[in-house]
Amino acid sequence: MSKFWSPLVSELQPYVPGEQPKMANLIKLNTNENPFGPSPQVIEAIERELNDNLRLYPDPEGQALKEAIASFHDEIGIKPSQVFVGNGSDEVLAHIFQGLLKHERPILFPDISYSFYPVYCGLFQIESKVIPLTDSFEINPEDYRQPNGGIIFPNPNAPTGRYLGLEHVEAILQANPDTVVVVDEAYVDFGGTSAITLVHRYPNLLVCQTLSKARSLAGLRVGFAVGNEELIEALNRVKDSFNSYPLDRLALAGAVAAFEDKQWFEDSCNGVIRERERVSKGLENLGFEVLPSKANFVFARHPRRTGEDLAAHLRQQGIIVRHFKKPRISEFLRITIGTPDQNGALLKGLGKILEA
Amino acid sequence: MSKFWSPLVSELQPYVPGEQPKMANLIKLNTNENPFGPSPQVIEAIERELNDNLRLYPDPEGQALKEAIASFHDEIGIKPSQVFVGNGSDEVLAHIFQGLLKHERPILFPDISYSFYPVYCGLFQIESKVIPLTDSFEINPEDYRQPNGGIIFPNPNAPTGRYLGLEHVEAILQANPDTVVVVDEAYVDFGGTSAITLVHRYPNLLVCQTLSKARSLAGLRVGFAVGNEELIEALNRVKDSFNSYPLDRLALAGAVAAFEDKQWFEDSCNGVIRERERVSKGLENLGFEVLPSKANFVFARHPRRTGEDLAAHLRQQGIIVRHFKKPRISEFLRITIGTPDQNGALLKGLGKILEA
Repeated sequence: MSKFWSPLVSELQPYVPGEQPKMANLIKLNTNENPFGPSPQVIEAIERELNDNLRLYPDPEGQALKEAIASFHDEIGIKPSQVFVGNGSDEVLAHIFQGLLKHERPILFPDISYSFYPVYCGLFQIESKVIPLTDSFEINPEDYRQPNGGIIFPNPNAPTGRYLGLEHVEAILQANPDTVVVVDEAYVDFGGTSAITLVHRYPNLLVCQTLSKARSLAGLRVGFAVGNEELIEALNRVKDSFNSYPLDRLALAGAVAAFEDKQWFEDSCNGVIRERERVSKGLENLGFEVLPSKANFVFARHPRRTGEDLAAHLRQQGIIVRHFKKPRISEFLRITIGTPDQNGALLKGLGKILEA
Repeated sequence: MSKFWSPLVSELQPYVPGEQPKMANLIKLNTNENPFGPSPQVIEAIERELNDNLRLYPDPEGQALKEAIASFHDEIGIKPSQVFVGNGSDEVLAHIFQGLLKHERPILFPDISYSFYPVYCGLFQIESKVIPLTDSFEINPEDYRQPNGGIIFPNPNAPTGRYLGLEHVEAILQANPDTVVVVDEAYVDFGGTSAITLVHRYPNLLVCQTLSKARSLAGLRVGFAVGNEELIEALNRVKDSFNSYPLDRLALAGAVAAFEDKQWFEDSCNGVIRERERVSKGLENLGFEVLPSKANFVFARHPRRTGEDLAAHLRQQGIIVRHFKKPRISEFLRITIGTPDQNGALLKGLGKILEA
């Protein structure tokens, strides 16, 4: 606390990102990064942009990227004006909270969910009401039939990995025509179907995605949202009141290339999905309960060992996974799907710990 | 206006950045970019970072960059914990407004100043009181002796280019021990002296800088602030409640290299200063009144022609400068210092227009 701080600052409870350890030779399965590198076309596109033009500001609108995203979804007929781009989906979400989710009534989100949501509520002083997942860690659309200032949930959910079918997403949209429903699809490409297909029918739908996961560009910081132009305009107004140029020239060039290389994208997603199924079976063979996942991670608990204990033992073997000291999920480990070798080491490591 | 928008959104008056035209062959003297490309070491450092590691999140703290900035100022004894880094100084300023300038009393800034300040006030609902510059477009420290919730001003000021000597900055700091005084030094390296030298003596001082101008990296989006740890902690708390990873891996690598190449930095600044003196004299020879500038631009008016008129005629010749339709300064042109060739073309073009 300091007399210089705005009154808000001392009340903030900042988000704690997963550890980015500086040691080498760790098997890092803690922040849901893609085990495979990005498309070589991304690297080439950035190389082409890596020149004296860095002296010039980037396009503040990121128009080329909006066009590439619209074009990627051309069978749905998305227009560039229906796309908003930002410095990682975290920045996009921040603008969404401030621009579309701050109303008189509290917003709704699941009790087990992306832990940045309550942080945004603190930053923008938004009231929220937390809706418990079912006992099987699922979102029940019926629970979202109550007065609210907006709704947000990840789909697939994090850290559970559970996917909510689009028919249930539609039920939530239909029950809430007067408030914005944000579907946060960071992990949707690993087996889910995006709600972007619903954008034309639901003016209250905003879909948020990132290039950090399926497109393997966590290091480049690019996220985006798709929705009707009225919602996108709100985000543009907030963004242009916050930071005109959130995406640098290299990030813009790389992100455009990432959307152009569809083959790499599909292969990469399929590779992660294959490994996820293998890891899930391996964990089950070791006695774990594994929630059904459509993400690039699995959420699993063992009947005999706590999550904290297992995470600590894995760490001794140089394997980092994520454990949340939170009600209802403290028994679980969230394990990012790695390369085949990394996943093999994980399963072997867990086997040793459980035998001991 | 939309029922989905937060009440705030429709009241926002977003910032309008200088045009980034997509046409080639323009002489672009409108957004104060550096006419010389960045240090070759920056390009090389980014190239080294351009690999499969883009799949991994960057360091959320940007520790290497904080160390490089501290090290650049080692004769002053700045610690990395006294440095905050962000996605361009615009993002840094946004966090400053929200975290350090939002108090019960209005903040103070000059009437002619960076036009993003009132925009931030709108976004974060901060009261402000605008303090007129003197008739010679200077900041008078005496005007900043009044109750306030914080003070911010660019030094050199934009768009005037006028520099306020450090003894006057100190007078403002001494008169306001209980509120934060932010010195926004985007342009300080072109002939001014940074207030960073005062940080140890004034716990209420925060200095904000950018890599977009003197380090020729507008396209990379990196800015930073230096101050006592108490102020930096407020910024960290806001940042970690907004976006954990604002700087991508490439921007971090490039920015570190930019601070390491001191020779390039000095040569580049000297090159701009030399050209600024030549352009100023050339404009005076054409009958312009040119405000004394310590920035990489000049602010000038002609007794016989309006700024709008001159800007329009220059545009016909493919030369873009910036004109503000605002009280007190609508007669002026803000002209970025370009390469020797570009500056020659500007002076020649203006000569033709004035002859006609």
